[in-house]
Formats: sequence, C-alpha cells, structure tokens
Amino acid sequence: MAPTLSVVLVRPQLGQNIGLAARAMGNFGVSDLRLVSPRDPWPNPEAQNASVAAKPIIEGATLYDSLAEATKDLSWVFCTSARLRYIKKEVYTLSQGTNLVKTLGLPKIGLVFGPEQAGLTNEEVSLCHGGLLIKTSSTVPSLNLAHAVLLCLYEFSRVSYPTPLYDLSTHGNTLSFLCFFEERLEKKGFFSPKEKEEKMRQNLRDIFLRRPLSYQDINTLFGAIKALEKNVDNSSKR
Amino acid sequence: MAPTLSVVLVRPQLGQNIGLAARAMGNFGVSDLRLVSPRDPWPNPEAQNASVAAKPIIEGATLYDSLAEATKDLSWVFCTSARLRYIKKEVYTLSQGTNLVKTLGLPKIGLVFGPEQAGLTNEEVSLCHGGLLIKTSSTVPSLNLAHAVLLCLYEFSRVSYPTPLYDLSTHGNTLSFLCFFEERLEKKGFFSPKEKEEKMRQNLRDIFLRRPLSYQDINTLFGAIKALEKNVDNSSKR
Repeated sequence: MAPTLSVVLVRPQLGQNIGLAARAMGNFGVSDLRLVSPRDPWPNPEAQNASVAAKPIIEGATLYDSLAEATKDLSWVFCTSARLRYIKKEVYTLSQGTNLVKTLGLPKIGLVFGPEQAGLTNEEVSLCHGGLLIKTSSTVPSLNLAHAVLLCLYEFSRVSYPTPLYDLSTHGNTLSFLCFFEERLEKKGFFSPKEKEEKMRQNLRDIFLRRPLSYQDINTLFGAIKALEKNVDNSSKR
Repeated sequence: MAPTLSVVLVRPQLGQNIGLAARAMGNFGVSDLRLVSPRDPWPNPEAQNASVAAKPIIEGATLYDSLAEATKDLSWVFCTSARLRYIKKEVYTLSQGTNLVKTLGLPKIGLVFGPEQAGLTNEEVSLCHGGLLIKTSSTVPSLNLAHAVLLCLYEFSRVSYPTPLYDLSTHGNTLSFLCFFEERLEKKGFFSPKEKEEKMRQNLRDIFLRRPLSYQDINTLFGAIKALEKNVDNSSKR
C-alpha cells in the first residue's frame, strides 16, 4: 500500500509556481492539487502554461477558503514553513517524515506549502500535525515554492507500507473535536490571560495533533469532555 | 570528505531556468556553474532575477564552447538525458549514482544537463562517464531543467566518504588519451564501414569511461598504444 498524496498551496502568488508545482506533481504521479485563496484569478493562464504536460492537474485543482476546509478529508497533514522555529510543532526532516508515514501506515497525506514570501501563519501551522524541514544552505536558505513541492514529492512518492490496522480519524473530524474542546474551555475562561490565548490554543492543538488518532479515539475524547461538564457528582455513591 | 559538485548546463534556452538552477545550487551549497553555449546573450538579466539570493552563482558562472572543455578538470561526469536509452552508457538511478561516488571516493563530480527541448547529443553523452536516470511517471515524464538540477543536488550534496587512495585522472586527461587513441585507429582504417563509425567511437569511449582511471592508468595506456605502433619485432629474440 502507498499513501495518497495531496498538495495544498496556501495563498500562492505566482501562477508560474503553481504550474511548475503541478508539473512536479505529474512527474511523480500525484494529481490532487488544492489551492487555498490563490492571489490571482483562477483559472490562471500562467499556471496552465508552466504546467506543460501536467495541465490536467491544473484543470482539476480544487479551490478552498481555508486550510482547515482544504484538509478535512485527509488523515495526516505536514506543513513546510520557516515559522516552524517559532511555534511548538514536531518538525521532521524529509526522511524522518517519510519514515513516520511508513511506520504508522498513514493513508491520506497532505503536504501544505505557504505563500512565496510570507509563509504560513502561526494559526495555519497550528492546524497541521507536523512540520517538514528541508535542510538547505545558510547562505541561500529559501527554496522556490515549486522546488519545495518537488523535493517533498520525490521523497513521499517512494513510500509504501503494509495495510494499517486501525481506522484513522480524518483531519476534519479531529479538528471538529479540537474546535468543540476549545469552545468549551473558552466558556470556562480557560484561555486567560488574553495575551496568552493564541499560544495556549496552539499548544493544546499540538497535544492532539502530534500522534494519529482513530475515529474511536475522537469519540472517546468527545465523550470524556461532555462527561466532565455534566452536573453530576458520583463521588457520594462510592 | 565530500566531492565537489559542478553543474554544467549545455545550450540552456531559458534564462529563468538558469536562474532557478542557480538558486537550487545555492540551497545545497554548490556554487560552480558552467554554461556551454547558452542560447541567449550572457549576462542574462532573467537568469539573475530568477536566482534571487543565489545571484553570486550566476555572476560567477563560466562560459565554454564545448562540453569537453567544460569538464576537463573534473574526475567524473554524469549526464542526465532521455537519450541514454539509445546509446551504450551505464545508467544509474540517483541512489546508485551517489553510491558509486561514495564507493569509489570520486572527488570532482560534474552533473551535465542538456537543453530544455532537445537534450544532449549522442556525441555529448558519449563523452560522459555515466548517465543518471530520475524515475518519473510515464504520464508526465519530462522534468523541468531546474527541477532536474535540484533533485540531483539534493542527493549528491549529502554524499561523503573517506579519503580515496588513488590519484584519479582528470576528465581532460582521459579525453586526451581517447582522442589520441581514436586518431591512431582512424589512421589504420579501424572505423569502417563509415556508417558504423559514430557508434564504434561511442562504444570505444564507453569502455574507458565506464570506470575511473588514475593518472598512472592513462600513462600506461598511452605507452601501450605507442608501443604497438613501433616498427620493432622482438619475437625473433625470444
């Protein structure tokens, strides 16, 4: 078995980079391209031209308004970002990342790439399971967007593993739980002081995104949080 | 020890591809860019723009009139070409190629890339030691030029090995021997019939380029060929 790979470009700026990323996808047999709010109108003729023989990938690309929407059917989402240094998130080299996918038998992998200049926001990084780091020279550290896509696909397209035993939660299902959990915590005034709220939310998400969870795990967590809120005290019955 | 890497672009057409190749070089700490007869005038502003932080690599690029000139100081020259299927030349995957470099401790590696559309000529392929094949999908087989450079550098920049024991001939020295040998054979009418000459020359080169030769090896070969031509018969002295 091999994982399916989806490439998610968040707010990409240059049509040419989108087209060259699609060509790289085609080179490695990957066809699922997802675009979150591209800068220029879509369809984009520059993207089509640069994709050459991979034009069907450009034509089949799907558009989304948010990273959460674009990844909800996936089982594991890696992001690549220079911001990985600033927020709490497990960071893997490409070979560590592919080993993780092999070892855990993760079936539907999302590879998320931020915009050319600014990269992903902290909020977006916090919604991913892990980060990928491509080691580059300190003199010319920044990779071209399509080059980053190419290197990730080159490594991830070679991954295969035996059929996994458990039924992994989709990313959307896990995010629904996190949303529910954060909402409940917010009601109880957990995210205080206000200036620490963002960091607290990020750290909380990281706890649940660090390792894969099954549907059963998510159901158990939903149940546990709901149980804590019930106005019942069973301690007297002991 | 790690090999030094030189990127040789033969008749590149698009300045942007040259620039993006330089950027990829910069990302992996490689700075020696050699251009054989680029299509557009040099310096090329499009190449400079696309190189971003790797502009010093573009500015330091050296120009050559032929592939033989561009590679004569190197010790081992890989080419990447779709033509590898048509001519006799050992072909390696990227991991086989890096293993070869590791195992033999090859010090000065040239990575040769043909022009965007046509690729290298058979003559050019025959002047290289081995070919590199990057496995791609049959649907979108053709890699962008800068993408091919990037993948090769990604793999080759991670190679290291202990100090090699022998003193490898430069590619120029080996090519001088081949040139001398072919010239002598031509005089003797070896390359006949005429329509087989090209193929015969290619096969002959392949025999001597398939494995690394030391300076001593080349001197021995020069001496052996010269000895064969001497008008001396020692057989009666036995």
